[in-house]
Amino acid sequence: MKDKIEVVAFDADDTLWENEVYFQEFEHQFCDLLKAYQPQSAVSQELFKTEMKNLHMYGYGLKSMMLSMIETACRITGGEGNMYCVKEIVRLGQELLQRPVTLLDGVEEVLLRLQGKYRLVLATKGDLFDQRKKVRESGLMHYFCHIEIMSDKKEADYRKLLTTVECAPQNFLMLGNSVKSDILPVLELGGYAAHIPYHVTWQYETHDGDIAHPNFIRLKNITDIMEYLL
Amino acid sequence: MKDKIEVVAFDADDTLWENEVYFQEFEHQFCDLLKAYQPQSAVSQELFKTEMKNLHMYGYGLKSMMLSMIETACRITGGEGNMYCVKEIVRLGQELLQRPVTLLDGVEEVLLRLQGKYRLVLATKGDLFDQRKKVRESGLMHYFCHIEIMSDKKEADYRKLLTTVECAPQNFLMLGNSVKSDILPVLELGGYAAHIPYHVTWQYETHDGDIAHPNFIRLKNITDIMEYLL
Repeated sequence: MKDKIEVVAFDADDTLWENEVYFQEFEHQFCDLLKAYQPQSAVSQELFKTEMKNLHMYGYGLKSMMLSMIETACRITGGEGNMYCVKEIVRLGQELLQRPVTLLDGVEEVLLRLQGKYRLVLATKGDLFDQRKKVRESGLMHYFCHIEIMSDKKEADYRKLLTTVECAPQNFLMLGNSVKSDILPVLELGGYAAHIPYHVTWQYETHDGDIAHPNFIRLKNITDIMEYLL
Repeated sequence: MKDKIEVVAFDADDTLWENEVYFQEFEHQFCDLLKAYQPQSAVSQELFKTEMKNLHMYGYGLKSMMLSMIETACRITGGEGNMYCVKEIVRLGQELLQRPVTLLDGVEEVLLRLQGKYRLVLATKGDLFDQRKKVRESGLMHYFCHIEIMSDKKEADYRKLLTTVECAPQNFLMLGNSVKSDILPVLELGGYAAHIPYHVTWQYETHDGDIAHPNFIRLKNITDIMEYLL
């Protein structure tokens, strides 16, 4: 495989830096705000329903989550709640938007070792403004020859990315924590994909079942990819 | 000029299709929701203050505006307001997000006539997800060889765009309605810029003063550009 790969692409949230754990903490605080109305698990399910309903309008990212939380709070309180809860959602969301980026273990080492040997690409999904800000603040920008902020991570989105970076699928390796977004569409295109587990996964990104594909690599952590590429 | 230009880039909102007039209608409805607390002009100024405070966190776009409206409503009502107002902001915002794209007069004719003679680029600022959706729904996608959704429209952002489309500044022409975002940074780089006035301008994008620059073109409407390019 080593001699085939030209471009190594990295997912960002929960692959290079912490993300979902912060989102889940935010969701937990949100459920707490509404505990007088419904138990935590019910509030959480209501939020997920709202997020799925709004996905085609809002897309991914924290601003979308904040808006879906506010809408859910209006629904759950039946309009009887006061504005305190809304104010808290805005405050907590803004705090999270400004939280410094925390790199995951081994990330900088891997980028440093692969740099110059492969063209490194960052391929992330989510809110353009928020993701650009995180990339800048991460201090990792100089490792990447291209940064692609995708509005979704379906096969067509990866095909567009491959055209942009002028790479054939069989010379492309994607690394990420989401089987649904980082692995399956890339395998489908004929590329290579390596899964790095992260300790929490957003309900929307969960995937059941094994993957039996010759181009699939299962890693324990990000540094393991060096055994395949160096 | 005609023989120099290789790439013609178009701003999207208020250059290709209606936008600001919808935003201003939304703002009007928002002020109306809060008229029991403060007069319309005061609410409008409070919203603008909130938007400017949040710009570095939220970026541009309708979701950002919705969140800033909700925050402003919390502040103006002193937390005393009920959730009805918040619910209305969410409802009106979602309605706007789903409104069909309305092309401005002459746009399709200009694109049709320039197509094949110049490389046409769409260069827009705003929310990635929302702008991609609008481009798809506009039916104009096939005219453009490249679509750039920029998180801002400063000189550095245009420099990046020029690298992507492999074009020197002196071979680049930008058309748009915002002097601040579409004209000045492009002239600064040594490119050409043509201003097409739109009947309303967001307070943030307003610009006073004349532009005296050899590469600046002042148009009455978008079809006038054909006199320069055909």
